[in-house]
Amino acid sequence: MTEASAAAPTIVPVKLGDRSYDIVIGSGLIERAGREIADRTDAMRVAIVSDETVAGLHLERLTHSLNAAGVHVTPIIVAPGEKSKGFATLETVTNAILSARLERGDIVIAFGGGVIGDLAGFAAGIARRGMGFIQMPTSLLAQVDSSVGGKTGINTIHGKNLVGLFYQPQLVLADTDVLDTLSPREFRAGYAEVAKYGLIDRPDFFAWLEKNWRGIFEGGPERTEAIAVSCRSKADVVARDERETGDRALLNLGHTFGHALETATHYDSSRLVHGEAVAIGMVLAHQFSAKMNLASPDDAARVETHLRMVGLPTSIHEIPGDLPPAGRLMEYIAQDKKVARGALTFILTRGIGQSFIAKDVPASAVLSFLQEKQQR
Amino acid sequence: MTEASAAAPTIVPVKLGDRSYDIVIGSGLIERAGREIADRTDAMRVAIVSDETVAGLHLERLTHSLNAAGVHVTPIIVAPGEKSKGFATLETVTNAILSARLERGDIVIAFGGGVIGDLAGFAAGIARRGMGFIQMPTSLLAQVDSSVGGKTGINTIHGKNLVGLFYQPQLVLADTDVLDTLSPREFRAGYAEVAKYGLIDRPDFFAWLEKNWRGIFEGGPERTEAIAVSCRSKADVVARDERETGDRALLNLGHTFGHALETATHYDSSRLVHGEAVAIGMVLAHQFSAKMNLASPDDAARVETHLRMVGLPTSIHEIPGDLPPAGRLMEYIAQDKKVARGALTFILTRGIGQSFIAKDVPASAVLSFLQEKQQR
Ligand SMILES: NC(=O)c1ccc[n+]([C@@H]2O[C@H](COP(=O)([O-])OP(=O)(O)OC[C@H]3O[C@@H](n4cnc5c(N)ncnc54)[C@H](O)[C@@H]3O)[C@@H](O)[C@H]2O)c1
Ligand SMILES: NC(=O)c1ccc[n+]([C@@H]2O[C@H](COP(=O)([O-])OP(=O)(O)OC[C@H]3O[C@@H](n4cnc5c(N)ncnc54)[C@H](O)[C@@H]3O)[C@@H](O)[C@H]2O)c1
Ligand SMILES: [Zn+2]
Ligand SMILES: [Zn+2]
Repeated sequence: MTEASAAAPTIVPVKLGDRSYDIVIGSGLIERAGREIADRTDAMRVAIVSDETVAGLHLERLTHSLNAAGVHVTPIIVAPGEKSKGFATLETVTNAILSARLERGDIVIAFGGGVIGDLAGFAAGIARRGMGFIQMPTSLLAQVDSSVGGKTGINTIHGKNLVGLFYQPQLVLADTDVLDTLSPREFRAGYAEVAKYGLIDRPDFFAWLEKNWRGIFEGGPERTEAIAVSCRSKADVVARDERETGDRALLNLGHTFGHALETATHYDSSRLVHGEAVAIGMVLAHQFSAKMNLASPDDAARVETHLRMVGLPTSIHEIPGDLPPAGRLMEYIAQDKKVARGALTFILTRGIGQSFIAKDVPASAVLSFLQEKQQR
Repeated sequence: MTEASAAAPTIVPVKLGDRSYDIVIGSGLIERAGREIADRTDAMRVAIVSDETVAGLHLERLTHSLNAAGVHVTPIIVAPGEKSKGFATLETVTNAILSARLERGDIVIAFGGGVIGDLAGFAAGIARRGMGFIQMPTSLLAQVDSSVGGKTGINTIHGKNLVGLFYQPQLVLADTDVLDTLSPREFRAGYAEVAKYGLIDRPDFFAWLEKNWRGIFEGGPERTEAIAVSCRSKADVVARDERETGDRALLNLGHTFGHALETATHYDSSRLVHGEAVAIGMVLAHQFSAKMNLASPDDAARVETHLRMVGLPTSIHEIPGDLPPAGRLMEYIAQDKKVARGALTFILTRGIGQSFIAKDVPASAVLSFLQEKQQR
């Protein structure tokens, strides 16, 4: 492989009619962002929304690259963390976009993790009834999940992500080097979503991950490959079901159990971050599928082994602190899902890479499964 | 005409592909709302957003009609007036929609003037990333203008309507009787927008208004007719240009001068309401067109005569209190329009019903016209 081809980014197209766009994945993209954006848009001015952590580490290089391409930059920096995904910060960011005197054809760049992508995308969608928007995800979770698919939004007292828009970016630039400054814990959490794509419907990808995960963590070419496969997987699902009326639900594999655990730990990230909850949730979904005689227990064990290998938690007993009893967890699940006459819709599996949307899962079976899990 | 046909509502279709919908205009529609909505949707629950004034006068009848059709109602009432069109009330209304436990297929009804339509439509567009939405406009301005076309939004410190969405309703129900409780001043203000459609491109409609305006004010069948023609006019323009990249600008006839006057009076509605500003602005646009030798001065005089006849102001000298000098008005215009090298885009006219988008209008000509106007 020559030097040049090693550096050429991978492009994953997202096909959504007149809202189609490219995801560009590769090394050194922050330094090349100015050129990419100048080549692909007419924007003269951009606002970069970022959090203090990401801005402190990487904003200067990005600003430099944009300025060198003749693009004027206004930085809009918010506090890191989920608290910034609320109405107060939305108002601040939207007003800052208007203060920057951007026109409708100018661009808002989300430069950060999923919090920044969701917040900045929402603000871009409502400022002047819709500005240009580019995602530059900097966490692994954002690169493989939140920056793809156009869901944006904020949290309210009534729950997470209940207010927002479907607003597609016009470009996603995922610099694989930027992940080197991510904490190992956040990197692992993002990896749970990578593994999820294998478990949904790509058994070969899961097998490849079992062999190649070290290269992903260490920043080898496997990293770009894994991000590209993940984006392609999500883009395929989104193209089939942009507004989540059907198939898109498959992306929730592990998330029903996961959300219940996040609620039970009050979204306290010192106890559990989202990707960890998803890792435990995916193991539970495979074990429950085995219990329902849908899949072999060997598959559940294989999932557990791999996730444990990369350092993710795989059992509710690994969550520090006390958890509420199974009955309470069940209530959280029911709240999330709307129980129709004692039956739930769940993502279950027939084996590695064979997930499906199961309607009419008896709530009583889920409850007794959770009771067993808590006893051991 | 039989009783039944007299009561049959007029339907104006708005053709926007898969976002198409009907505007239903007629007498007694509040009492029939429950049936109309039950026939046309699957919604079991609605939230009605209204202001204290409109709710006090008309909410009970609407709630009764919906309940009788088996639809559960949650009222969400805000203070009347432009101040409710801001981030704070948007948050309150959005949270109230979520509290009401509406699902995505349930419906938010905007029941009020343009303030309520813009606010509730925006909240409906972002709650759960988009709920069902129905407009029930209760001011003349809302029935002929703001409820048609899908623009929703709020004001910020940076200006009016700078934050929002294009979000189309699935149905508009315009009860012509509800206008009987509107203050005469607000009725006249809405009438300015009715006349505007004649002046844009319907000279016959303007001539019809000159003869039939009394019936519109008194609630005769002319009222339904005038509202229907207005909605059809706006719907045509919107269908050609949903996102305002071209033709839709014609709807701004009279609005460039009008906005400058509203800014100059600090949006103080005791001095000037929007429709009054538009009335004066339309007269100015015709006079300026005559001064530029584009149209006959007789046409400007005809516009002035008609608007004065219905009781609208037609000259800046009728605005109570002091106005800033012409140079300052010019600055407000320039702020609004982005002056490109001393030239403005303006809606001008070649005569009654012959408006057009004029690019390259010299700012100096507008300034000296305003100076003349202020002297007399
Ligand atoms: N829109 C969607 O489809 C979607 C999908 C999944 C998750 N989400 C949302 O995404 C959010 C979670 O995303 P996240 O895990 O990226 O959270 P995040 O944005 O809070 O980032 C996690 C932490 O990593 C830091 N960080 C990010 N990039 C870094 C880098 N390169 N170097 C050093 N530190 C870095 C951040 O400052 C933050 O402290 C949640 O709000 C979730 O609801 C959205
Ligand atoms: N979305 C659009 O395309 C669009 C177009 C034009 C104007 N607008 C917006 O519309 C707003 C102005 O609309 P408006 O003039 O209807 O203002 P409004 O909603 O404030 O109503 C004017 C007043 O009339 C009262 N009222 C309304 N209906 C009544 C009734 N049937 N009986 C008694 N009182 C009644 C209201 O309580 C209010 O005090 C502005 O915010 C403007 O920006 C939007
Ligand atoms: Zn997730
Ligand atoms: Zn107007």
